[in-house]
Amino acid sequence: MQCKCGHKAVYFRRYSGQHLCSKCFSRSIFKKFKDIIRMNKLMERGDRIVCGVSGGKDSLVLLYLLKKLSEKFQFELSALTIDEGISGYRDLSIPFVKKACSDLDIELHIRSFKEEYGYSLDEVASMDDRLGACSYCGVFRRNILNKHARELGADRLAMGHNLDDESQVILMNLLRGDVSRFGRMGTFYRDVHHKFIPRIKPLREIPEKEIVLYAIVNGIDFDFEECPYAPEAFRDDIRDFLNMMEEKRPGTKHALLKTYDRLYPLLNQTFAPESISTCGNCGEPSISLFCKKCEMLEDIGKKLGKAD
Amino acid sequence: MQCKCGHKAVYFRRYSGQHLCSKCFSRSIFKKFKDIIRMNKLMERGDRIVCGVSGGKDSLVLLYLLKKLSEKFQFELSALTIDEGISGYRDLSIPFVKKACSDLDIELHIRSFKEEYGYSLDEVASMDDRLGACSYCGVFRRNILNKHARELGADRLAMGHNLDDESQVILMNLLRGDVSRFGRMGTFYRDVHHKFIPRIKPLREIPEKEIVLYAIVNGIDFDFEECPYAPEAFRDDIRDFLNMMEEKRPGTKHALLKTYDRLYPLLNQTFAPESISTCGNCGEPSISLFCKKCEMLEDIGKKLGKAD
Repeated sequence: MQCKCGHKAVYFRRYSGQHLCSKCFSRSIFKKFKDIIRMNKLMERGDRIVCGVSGGKDSLVLLYLLKKLSEKFQFELSALTIDEGISGYRDLSIPFVKKACSDLDIELHIRSFKEEYGYSLDEVASMDDRLGACSYCGVFRRNILNKHARELGADRLAMGHNLDDESQVILMNLLRGDVSRFGRMGTFYRDVHHKFIPRIKPLREIPEKEIVLYAIVNGIDFDFEECPYAPEAFRDDIRDFLNMMEEKRPGTKHALLKTYDRLYPLLNQTFAPESISTCGNCGEPSISLFCKKCEMLEDIGKKLGKAD
Repeated sequence: MQCKCGHKAVYFRRYSGQHLCSKCFSRSIFKKFKDIIRMNKLMERGDRIVCGVSGGKDSLVLLYLLKKLSEKFQFELSALTIDEGISGYRDLSIPFVKKACSDLDIELHIRSFKEEYGYSLDEVASMDDRLGACSYCGVFRRNILNKHARELGADRLAMGHNLDDESQVILMNLLRGDVSRFGRMGTFYRDVHHKFIPRIKPLREIPEKEIVLYAIVNGIDFDFEECPYAPEAFRDDIRDFLNMMEEKRPGTKHALLKTYDRLYPLLNQTFAPESISTCGNCGEPSISLFCKKCEMLEDIGKKLGKAD
């Protein structure tokens, strides 16, 4: 099949019916990325943007697109990587981050669980706790990202969540009956606490497979490995279901996100504001008296002994 | 396994961990049914309740429970059946309705598509229209139910939707991006138009399989047949997914409904009120200038010739 520009198509976008050559495909992704930022007012000229980068496809494509955008639309850009301490995984992905930042001439900051909390994720996982490594990791990662983005003077923390991630989480929260979390995951998490750096997700309307294709077509080297810790069975079921529905009815993931975005203003008004306070221990934003991270660290301290 | 009362259990309710004998099971269903009515203020003493009855398990169990409740809590009860004109199906289910109404001593009213619109559903289906029989049937059925419930002086129109129906529709509307429909399907559709009879769904928190079991245990004869018209592929996918999730994580359907119910007050405020007006042709409630039923009838008239 041919692209409308006359070149050979490399991709068929089922949900729009377009056949695209690699150049038109890349252009369409950059345009979509810019549209998401503009339509949702995700950033302003002169902003300091810190991009969370793991070394996987999503975050490296985001970094690449942000760099490309920064050449036209003036803002400061740096990268922040969290080293959770997962041997055989994160140590292999960080070189991808370093190479990308060096190629793109972007300042890179690396923070680790070990230096921040005294424990690596491998050590936490060795407790074999009922919560599982992923629960600790999620809480710790969000905490460090926010804290260090703030220390770096960030106006916005950019995250690489794609359409698949977003639609999966929407459905997961719905099926879990988790309304308050459902109200806290929109396009643009507005200022809810003076220490909270608003997170933006400029890839949230772009399907995962288009991110992969964009990386390949644009020579962005990324780490293909998946984290060795427990793939979440619940998410796997949701992913399979959404992929099946998208296959049968192209546009399903976009429709789910659209529904959520139309509900979001209602949800956000009602659930978010009163729920964010300050942790009585560390002073970071928290939804209860002490933040989840402090609670978890206390628990880990009891089980593993105090960190050095 | 034994029921906590000492009798032999006939059912294991996975989402609550209870083993129940047939008597305790039946009691629990009647209690749940009453709780749903009380908690949501679905009716008041002295109300005239018209129950939509098809002859299937849900509507006959609902009729049975309403009758049982009417013996303690004073209200008027009658039944309304719609004969869509589906030969080999509805003609076989109506006898179940007649027998139930006779056994329970409930006045039964039957209205048909043929007498109301001039066409049976079989005739409409013969057009082989792209919309499909189910689209026409849904619109027509809702129209007649509302109109005749009103003519019967109903305060409330009771419908037999169970937990499975409700959770499927919630997910279907979400995945279709249909926010306005999403906002119009709560526990209790409040007064939005003077000609609209509020619909109540007192079984909406009871799983389908418990409705079947209740019918069997209480000797309620119902029609097992399914409608011969196109089982909707989209709904089948959603049903299979929710059943799989419920199997793996008991309580999933309840959680989805709970999420919806917490969102509903927000949705209903925002989407419902301004959207209901009056059809310029028939004077029934409508969301546009002319109601869907009138539009469809005009279309059918063109294709099949005017009805006699």
